[in-house]
Amino acid sequence: MEFHYPNGKKFSPKSNKNSQTKKEKSFSHGKRGMTLEEDLNETNDYYIQTGKAVIHKKPVPVQIVTVDYPKRSAAVIKEAYFKQASTTDYNGVYNGYYIDFEAKETRNRTSFPLQNFHQHQLDHMDQVTAQKGIAFVIIRFSATEEIFLMPYEHLKRYWERMLQGGRKSMTKDEIETSSHSIPLGLQPRIDYLKIIDHLLIELLKERNHNG
Amino acid sequence: MEFHYPNGKKFSPKSNKNSQTKKEKSFSHGKRGMTLEEDLNETNDYYIQTGKAVIHKKPVPVQIVTVDYPKRSAAVIKEAYFKQASTTDYNGVYNGYYIDFEAKETRNRTSFPLQNFHQHQLDHMDQVTAQKGIAFVIIRFSATEEIFLMPYEHLKRYWERMLQGGRKSMTKDEIETSSHSIPLGLQPRIDYLKIIDHLLIELLKERNHNG
Repeated sequence: MEFHYPNGKKFSPKSNKNSQTKKEKSFSHGKRGMTLEEDLNETNDYYIQTGKAVIHKKPVPVQIVTVDYPKRSAAVIKEAYFKQASTTDYNGVYNGYYIDFEAKETRNRTSFPLQNFHQHQLDHMDQVTAQKGIAFVIIRFSATEEIFLMPYEHLKRYWERMLQGGRKSMTKDEIETSSHSIPLGLQPRIDYLKIIDHLLIELLKERNHNG
Repeated sequence: MEFHYPNGKKFSPKSNKNSQTKKEKSFSHGKRGMTLEEDLNETNDYYIQTGKAVIHKKPVPVQIVTVDYPKRSAAVIKEAYFKQASTTDYNGVYNGYYIDFEAKETRNRTSFPLQNFHQHQLDHMDQVTAQKGIAFVIIRFSATEEIFLMPYEHLKRYWERMLQGGRKSMTKDEIETSSHSIPLGLQPRIDYLKIIDHLLIELLKERNHNG
């Protein structure tokens, strides 16, 4: 089976420099020192190649101002600015289900800062949930390489606690209680659809119980 | 009800210059001379505001090479290139259904050139269909302001005819036979979900008939 990785120079947003949580590579992590984003792209490639799901990362939204069109070579963007995204980064379809998520990592060890998320992302996940889509976040503690899938309803709870003056982060304990741990694998690296299968069974049971 | 339009200068890809079908504004079209893309963005905004669906256009994929970080002002992208998208332009969720489509317009009057689409988009729509998503294209004849929704299965048929040496376009007659006309409205401008409702009922009938 062939996998196609994006080629060319990878852009790493330096604007995150002042943030508590950097997307820096953890060189202890696998043979290539991969970021959460790289692991997820590889996982999504695997899902597509094996016909399991069609989930993609959305491109970084950019406001293009000036473009040069040199003769006999590719157009060059000469001036552009980063725009605020209005959605989460990943979406797609899995066996008829609409999948929508955001992925973030922290170098903290005991808590996950909520500043990694933005109000517009929560609003978006709210809208997705209302449309019967499956919304969640994938969070990674880079120091320990632990990865969790947290359904949106729980993130929302911690977010609202913050808005009401509560703590600006989720503790590790809270995350362990309200999320599902995703073991790091070889292929796929982060098999999050296994957790989704589990959540769907739970959802079905609930509906049968209530019906 | 408030609508939020994208602000700032709009980028119009000049690289389409040599293509038969330009994304030029039709100034006879409504009060503001809107392109198909603008009409669809407005429609999608309307769907979100009214809680009908959550469907967005994906950002243009760009390979960023150089970024400047001036003091006290926003980061400026100084060198970047357009990348080939690996999906269609629009996707989202409507009442639990995964929606995925591409939108194109032509200034031709009697046929729609298939060069408006690319193999990777058809591959993507194939994958989406296999995952039980709803894939289609929205095509517009800008001269007559006629808009059609063509389910992917029909586009695929014309595409394969071309690959087998057949004509490189779909005739207007073919489009009228295998698509659904979308009347241009005021709010929303292009109510394509009404067609989807219709297709879903047909699909349900078929399933009941076969079951």
